[in-house]
Amino acid sequence: MQKIAGFGEIMQRLMTQKYQTIEQTQGFDVMYTGTALNVLASLAYFGYDTRMISKLPENALGFAARSAAQSFGVDMSRVIIGGDYLGLYFLEQGFGVRPSKVIYNREHSAFVTSHLDEYDWDAIYQDVTHVHFCGISFAVAENVRNIAVAAIKQAKERDIVVSLDFNYRPGLWSKEEAIDVYLGVLPLVDICFANQRDFSELLPFSVIDETESYEQMIEKTMQDVFSRYPNIQLIAGTKRLVLEPTFHQLQGFIATPATVVFSKAYQFDVLERIGGGDAFVAGVLHGYLGEEPLSYTVEFGVASSVYKHTILGDSNRARISDIEKLMKSSKNDMIER
Amino acid sequence: MQKIAGFGEIMQRLMTQKYQTIEQTQGFDVMYTGTALNVLASLAYFGYDTRMISKLPENALGFAARSAAQSFGVDMSRVIIGGDYLGLYFLEQGFGVRPSKVIYNREHSAFVTSHLDEYDWDAIYQDVTHVHFCGISFAVAENVRNIAVAAIKQAKERDIVVSLDFNYRPGLWSKEEAIDVYLGVLPLVDICFANQRDFSELLPFSVIDETESYEQMIEKTMQDVFSRYPNIQLIAGTKRLVLEPTFHQLQGFIATPATVVFSKAYQFDVLERIGGGDAFVAGVLHGYLGEEPLSYTVEFGVASSVYKHTILGDSNRARISDIEKLMKSSKNDMIER
Amino acid sequence: MQKIAGFGEIMQRLMTQKYQTIEQTQGFDVMYTGTALNVLASLAYFGYDTRMISKLPENALGFAARSAAQSFGVDMSRVIIGGDYLGLYFLEQGFGVRPSKVIYNREHSAFVTSHLDEYDWDAIYQDVTHVHFCGISFAVAENVRNIAVAAIKQAKERDIVVSLDFNYRPGLWSKEEAIDVYLGVLPLVDICFANQRDFSELLPFSVIDETESYEQMIEKTMQDVFSRYPNIQLIAGTKRLVLEPTFHQLQGFIATPATVVFSKAYQFDVLERIGGGDAFVAGVLHGYLGEEPLSYTVEFGVASSVYKHTILGDSNRARISDIEKLMKSSKNDMIER
Amino acid sequence: MQKIAGFGEIMQRLMTQKYQTIEQTQGFDVMYTGTALNVLASLAYFGYDTRMISKLPENALGFAARSAAQSFGVDMSRVIIGGDYLGLYFLEQGFGVRPSKVIYNREHSAFVTSHLDEYDWDAIYQDVTHVHFCGISFAVAENVRNIAVAAIKQAKERDIVVSLDFNYRPGLWSKEEAIDVYLGVLPLVDICFANQRDFSELLPFSVIDETESYEQMIEKTMQDVFSRYPNIQLIAGTKRLVLEPTFHQLQGFIATPATVVFSKAYQFDVLERIGGGDAFVAGVLHGYLGEEPLSYTVEFGVASSVYKHTILGDSNRARISDIEKLMKSSKNDMIER
Amino acid sequence: MQKIAGFGEIMQRLMTQKYQTIEQTQGFDVMYTGTALNVLASLAYFGYDTRMISKLPENALGFAARSAAQSFGVDMSRVIIGGDYLGLYFLEQGFGVRPSKVIYNREHSAFVTSHLDEYDWDAIYQDVTHVHFCGISFAVAENVRNIAVAAIKQAKERDIVVSLDFNYRPGLWSKEEAIDVYLGVLPLVDICFANQRDFSELLPFSVIDETESYEQMIEKTMQDVFSRYPNIQLIAGTKRLVLEPTFHQLQGFIATPATVVFSKAYQFDVLERIGGGDAFVAGVLHGYLGEEPLSYTVEFGVASSVYKHTILGDSNRARISDIEKLMKSSKNDMIER
Amino acid sequence: MQKIAGFGEIMQRLMTQKYQTIEQTQGFDVMYTGTALNVLASLAYFGYDTRMISKLPENALGFAARSAAQSFGVDMSRVIIGGDYLGLYFLEQGFGVRPSKVIYNREHSAFVTSHLDEYDWDAIYQDVTHVHFCGISFAVAENVRNIAVAAIKQAKERDIVVSLDFNYRPGLWSKEEAIDVYLGVLPLVDICFANQRDFSELLPFSVIDETESYEQMIEKTMQDVFSRYPNIQLIAGTKRLVLEPTFHQLQGFIATPATVVFSKAYQFDVLERIGGGDAFVAGVLHGYLGEEPLSYTVEFGVASSVYKHTILGDSNRARISDIEKLMKSSKNDMIER
Repeated sequence: MQKIAGFGEIMQRLMTQKYQTIEQTQGFDVMYTGTALNVLASLAYFGYDTRMISKLPENALGFAARSAAQSFGVDMSRVIIGGDYLGLYFLEQGFGVRPSKVIYNREHSAFVTSHLDEYDWDAIYQDVTHVHFCGISFAVAENVRNIAVAAIKQAKERDIVVSLDFNYRPGLWSKEEAIDVYLGVLPLVDICFANQRDFSELLPFSVIDETESYEQMIEKTMQDVFSRYPNIQLIAGTKRLVLEPTFHQLQGFIATPATVVFSKAYQFDVLERIGGGDAFVAGVLHGYLGEEPLSYTVEFGVASSVYKHTILGDSNRARISDIEKLMKSSKNDMIER
Repeated sequence: MQKIAGFGEIMQRLMTQKYQTIEQTQGFDVMYTGTALNVLASLAYFGYDTRMISKLPENALGFAARSAAQSFGVDMSRVIIGGDYLGLYFLEQGFGVRPSKVIYNREHSAFVTSHLDEYDWDAIYQDVTHVHFCGISFAVAENVRNIAVAAIKQAKERDIVVSLDFNYRPGLWSKEEAIDVYLGVLPLVDICFANQRDFSELLPFSVIDETESYEQMIEKTMQDVFSRYPNIQLIAGTKRLVLEPTFHQLQGFIATPATVVFSKAYQFDVLERIGGGDAFVAGVLHGYLGEEPLSYTVEFGVASSVYKHTILGDSNRARISDIEKLMKSSKNDMIER
Repeated sequence: MQKIAGFGEIMQRLMTQKYQTIEQTQGFDVMYTGTALNVLASLAYFGYDTRMISKLPENALGFAARSAAQSFGVDMSRVIIGGDYLGLYFLEQGFGVRPSKVIYNREHSAFVTSHLDEYDWDAIYQDVTHVHFCGISFAVAENVRNIAVAAIKQAKERDIVVSLDFNYRPGLWSKEEAIDVYLGVLPLVDICFANQRDFSELLPFSVIDETESYEQMIEKTMQDVFSRYPNIQLIAGTKRLVLEPTFHQLQGFIATPATVVFSKAYQFDVLERIGGGDAFVAGVLHGYLGEEPLSYTVEFGVASSVYKHTILGDSNRARISDIEKLMKSSKNDMIER
Repeated sequence: MQKIAGFGEIMQRLMTQKYQTIEQTQGFDVMYTGTALNVLASLAYFGYDTRMISKLPENALGFAARSAAQSFGVDMSRVIIGGDYLGLYFLEQGFGVRPSKVIYNREHSAFVTSHLDEYDWDAIYQDVTHVHFCGISFAVAENVRNIAVAAIKQAKERDIVVSLDFNYRPGLWSKEEAIDVYLGVLPLVDICFANQRDFSELLPFSVIDETESYEQMIEKTMQDVFSRYPNIQLIAGTKRLVLEPTFHQLQGFIATPATVVFSKAYQFDVLERIGGGDAFVAGVLHGYLGEEPLSYTVEFGVASSVYKHTILGDSNRARISDIEKLMKSSKNDMIER
Repeated sequence: MQKIAGFGEIMQRLMTQKYQTIEQTQGFDVMYTGTALNVLASLAYFGYDTRMISKLPENALGFAARSAAQSFGVDMSRVIIGGDYLGLYFLEQGFGVRPSKVIYNREHSAFVTSHLDEYDWDAIYQDVTHVHFCGISFAVAENVRNIAVAAIKQAKERDIVVSLDFNYRPGLWSKEEAIDVYLGVLPLVDICFANQRDFSELLPFSVIDETESYEQMIEKTMQDVFSRYPNIQLIAGTKRLVLEPTFHQLQGFIATPATVVFSKAYQFDVLERIGGGDAFVAGVLHGYLGEEPLSYTVEFGVASSVYKHTILGDSNRARISDIEKLMKSSKNDMIER
Repeated sequence: MQKIAGFGEIMQRLMTQKYQTIEQTQGFDVMYTGTALNVLASLAYFGYDTRMISKLPENALGFAARSAAQSFGVDMSRVIIGGDYLGLYFLEQGFGVRPSKVIYNREHSAFVTSHLDEYDWDAIYQDVTHVHFCGISFAVAENVRNIAVAAIKQAKERDIVVSLDFNYRPGLWSKEEAIDVYLGVLPLVDICFANQRDFSELLPFSVIDETESYEQMIEKTMQDVFSRYPNIQLIAGTKRLVLEPTFHQLQGFIATPATVVFSKAYQFDVLERIGGGDAFVAGVLHGYLGEEPLSYTVEFGVASSVYKHTILGDSNRARISDIEKLMKSSKNDMIER
């Protein structure tokens, strides 16, 4: 029986309504989200056992976050309860050429200020077979980075498969810091999620040859990574084209030391951009955990991400059948009765 | 003075808001709808006298349905009041590649379990000059089918013009059943609404020649139908292309034994897909009842349907002037002041 | 480690807003509720492990119900998934002299039509130490009654403590039926929740002497029940006075073969009446499971119920500290900062 | 077959939400109301045929008003369509000691500026057996007053029973004007609705003797009115005590030349004050039209008014059974299942 | 220190929600808007001192309008308080081929019925360096036109720069009237906003040569205007193409006696059409007041207008940095974190 | 011309809706509030010139707070813009015996972390005649306390009248700290707002003699304070009785060295408790600034506070006429038309 854990912050998301700006709105819709939670929630919808590794304050906000995660079926029994604040962010829903705006208030959150010795790894990793990390955990604060590194090492000691999503956010740390940290972590990782841009910006050995096609670049980079980090079994990522602000194209790739497979490219309307990457991670992990062929795995991963772009909120709400239906169809006029 | 009756179920529609899934939503918008009601409501907006033939439970849900129909101006005085349940369906509003989902709960409704001998045809058909039926009534349950057949026969005995919309729903019954029933009913029908797909799937004598154009196919099929069923005066239908999930193309045709006329093809954004067919029916009936030329009739029917795609809810909210304005314009930036 | 199971239906509750009638409303707020779920949800808020025994349809409505129960922390892993419909009810929120109105649609639900052989008692009762039943399960349909009786017997075979809330609903079955069933079940029950009215109406041996005080009546009835059913350890119930439609008085009692203890009487404003009895059950079970003194147990039970009357929805949202704070305070102007 | 007509304006009511002030709100709830419509809507809920006499503008606002009236089942086919504006008023929902505030914009409405020669009395009064007027129609503008007087005279010529509700609004006209008009109209009226205050302020022959009880005053005043106006068959009214801003007492009386009957006095919570008088009128008319005993009639009238105070909006939403249930009950904790 | 005044009406805007028609909606969103207010609000967001010249009724509606304007930072201290009604309009939000509909009720508003001698020009123009007018003020009523003309003359006496936006609305007045008025006003204006269509329809000396390009036509017309009205320093306008109902193209021009500069053409999704012209005015005034180069000025003006099309409500909510970011970007997938 | 300044934090208030708990809600209503802002907003509604002294972050949240304050008419031009966070608090709306709950997140706000040298007292106090402070400013953080003390001293140097509301919050600091600070500040204060409880807990020289009446205690305490602090001109406060959770009694007093005057006691329904004290302050300041008699001043102050309890949000929305109307009335059934 597989059990997938995820490490990261759960934040409160306060979103304006009806495309109003923050200055216009008389109210915010509220959700509780986070990249690790997004991946776990999506896997729970696929039917997997999942467990959150995090810390929440012992107040109504922390309980609300826990309750939201439980509603997806994620096991919250190992989440540390304590500290003062729940991290939060305000999301001003953009429209067309007006970008969405995010204002964070997470610096002093219970999770971001948590201490390594609060984490009981034996209890946390009980029955766990897989654990997922996101690059934001390495960027947001030094002590969180230390906890994340410890969590990876503790996982490896228990033969737990480790996946990592680069998810490089230039606003949170410098490229130099990021390179330094990622180079230290990569030797411990089994599965790696990253875009070509992540690799080319963060891996100093990458050299982009502008005359090559996208496919050639990916293939060469992958060979390079696999040869340097023989511990890595699988790398996957996506390439996004923004055709219109809310009409995108998405294509995915998956690579093993033996081969690289590309998915078909979807063009689709976007209801919400946030969480698209996490849905890709969850989709690829589903293929990996089910030992599906690479082609199925990458197609499922991309379709999972495309589907997510039609769902309000950070977390996908797709079951396996929803995604497989999307993989088979193209245009859609059917009302499913 | 013309009075148009319609036979069918009125259901409660419970719809998610803001593109949320059923699992996300904390509330449902409610409406009361049905194919016959949609046609009558639209005709009432055009200024016609209309009357509903149906059954509603004697509780607040039934009264709410009656009240909603009355708000359009539809005469509800002949609707039977009794039985236990109002049929209902949940509508999860899709977005882009994510299809809308419908969950029905109608099997045990007061209408679906109503008995033939509850219907007082003399009272129902008093002053009625025209009555409309929809294929769903023949598919949803055997006793409803029997009532519908009886209602057609009672209409013919009173020289009331009968129109029928095939509206074939594969989920409700098998093709064999449908063919069997429709072949029995067609000899009693004056006006018939059907798409080419309905004819080719349901009329066993249809043979599609793939080398022919759409226009040729329609013309040949119409000749065939008119020659077999001399009682039929008029056939009309539409052809839809789904260019993007919410950007469609629609074209209509109207046929008499003498000729076939095609409308222009509209391309348009879709707010809501449900009820588009009923709006076409209402539009064509308006042309027929007003003895308008075929070209006006089919153009009005298609424009009525296109307009409906911009209206929230199953029932159109267009007056004649709204539709005629659309028939004259193309792109629209005018705010009507 | 204690684990409390509960048997019963989870229904969709569709409630009008802003005190509108069903005929006025353009939308319904939705929740997923049920008496057993209410008890378990409340216990989960107190920190107990809980597990639901039920059946839900395999569609978005069933998943939404499961998700709502999980959000409280209730273990839904043993709930059967299958069947067609989720039971539902419409709740028209009353105001003052205008009573709330409920319209049910549950007769054909997946739970109500479930079969005894679908229930895997070994899996369901794994690790369970306590199981709770509600009288509605015995009233709603014969096969549900059979499943409930089997569930009680299966529990007794496993030395699981059984509690039963009479919760007599005259609308669902006749007094004769109820008496017949309850007399058959009482010999298997350890803890019993019932009001004086339940006892006097349902237990044929009860004789009310109008000259006696409420306290005397309760004491005499309890002696009678304990002497006839030596298996019963504990009986608890409440007495409600409706001072104004939304201003009530509530007092509780708890009885063992040795003694009867009465709580103080609260007078309080009522936001929502539904679920008050289930909150009392959960409160008393908390005292019982924690081996608290009877006086604490009955005071906690009543305060739990009183607190529930201030919460929107069927399920209480009180933690132990909230209730203990209420037990200590009387009037309240403090804003808890 | 009885058919009751009503003459008056239908206005748009724009109400703040959640007890916000007009300066706070970002939105208004909208309804379409008027005293005559309130009476007719209530009678339609009781099962009577009703018809509106009014004028509405030919735009979406006028159509919305018509649609709202039709949803109650009121016949709107004789309402004149034309003119520019729909009368409207803003209602700021008060709370406790903060009074509700109303801002009118009706002076230039299609109804208020309508002309006598637009009204086709033969069509309007076809099949009508009873017509109701409200004092506001005599106060709002001179031409409306002239139309109302003509409408009464046209009714009398057709042997239609005429009822009039004084409903004296000091803000709209002076006492002198009101006395003058009412003295002219009273000789044409069959049924009269008025409070003691209306009589004592508006009928110059009334002399209040402060040493008399309320009952004595009513009896003496009634004798006086009946002796001066032998055409009057029935007079009814209510007396309200405001115990708290939203907790009122209401008692009614009904008088014939032979006797005066008083109802019991209700004390009740108030959700909305507007339309309470119209609900009393409708309730008394129901008793009158059904030839019920005076005691039933006045009790039904008061209970109808009390029930209305629990309904959002101007128009009552009670059926006969709702009111008769209230007449039998006192305090209420029952949820009607 | 510059202070910009604006003359015009502030109206209440009552808008349907969720694309409902006026007949469907149970509520309206409310805002307080007007072309002059839109220009001032936008300038206030840019950091300028602004002052409104208008009249509002002394009731909650007038105060709400004042409060809304103050929330933008506009100085409302010189607005006259008095009169009866606040002008209002209902906005039915269109969708796709269904146009938005506007129903006005402004004819009797406090502003429209205000008198010239209520305006204290010394107080109004204290510290003012610039004043803006809109063509609607000249069209809506004769006395408003007289006040506007007086206001322009009073401004010129104080050496205040005067700008005028033609904003020709055929529904409000005839072309002949408009020509007559505009020819009288143009000799007093420093800055003029008008489209090619405005000029060609309103300036009798304009001759359109169909063989010329748009650029040539603009250049020729501008030369003509500058030569006839040497007082005019600056003319600016836009050209809109409606590619789809909610997908537009916009390009701007700015002209001095010396040169004409065209902006790039934006294509963009439209959330709301109203106020786009006012945002262009505000953008160009920002460039003018800051003595920016013409190219920056016209680009800023068009980007300001484009940004406005993504904002709900009449008034732009863009700061200078938002617009300059848009001027630099093209497609947008960034979430601003 | 008087201008009243106020010093304090503006916070974002995020409130649950429909009496939901924080764990239930899917959205929060948002307002921007603070004790000083409440006092100024109320005075602005009375027609006074007001100015805020505070600091707000330079992001959409800070701008939204500024906009909200401006909507009341408060001058925000001297508020410092900078820093990272806007202080915020979550308000869970209680019901009946369930108390409201507040969760703060203000510790790291731009205001709380502001520095003394950011405040330009010459600009801030330009034209100011009166400045108000609240005890919370002295409690929330040491540097804010220092700024507040400096602000008082700067005011005294400019002969600005200083008022201080004790508003002692035990949760924010210890009694010892509070006593220490208040004893240091009292010699600089002209007007003092405090309850008997504040005095008896915070002023070490107060001795309560339990045998004395409330009036005697107040009078004795006032004499004591005036004799120790001859700088104090005026002291005012209220006494609240919580009869039911949402039904309170309030009485006020006002004292000068010469006399003490008590207001009548109001009993009233409570919509919102927050801001009641600030409304009393504003009411008393209105009497003081207008040099009204003490009896008017204290009655106006209490009526202002009572009125505030009927308004949603922290800030009162009463104009002078609203309060004077309340002072004259008792029970209220009038709808103001």
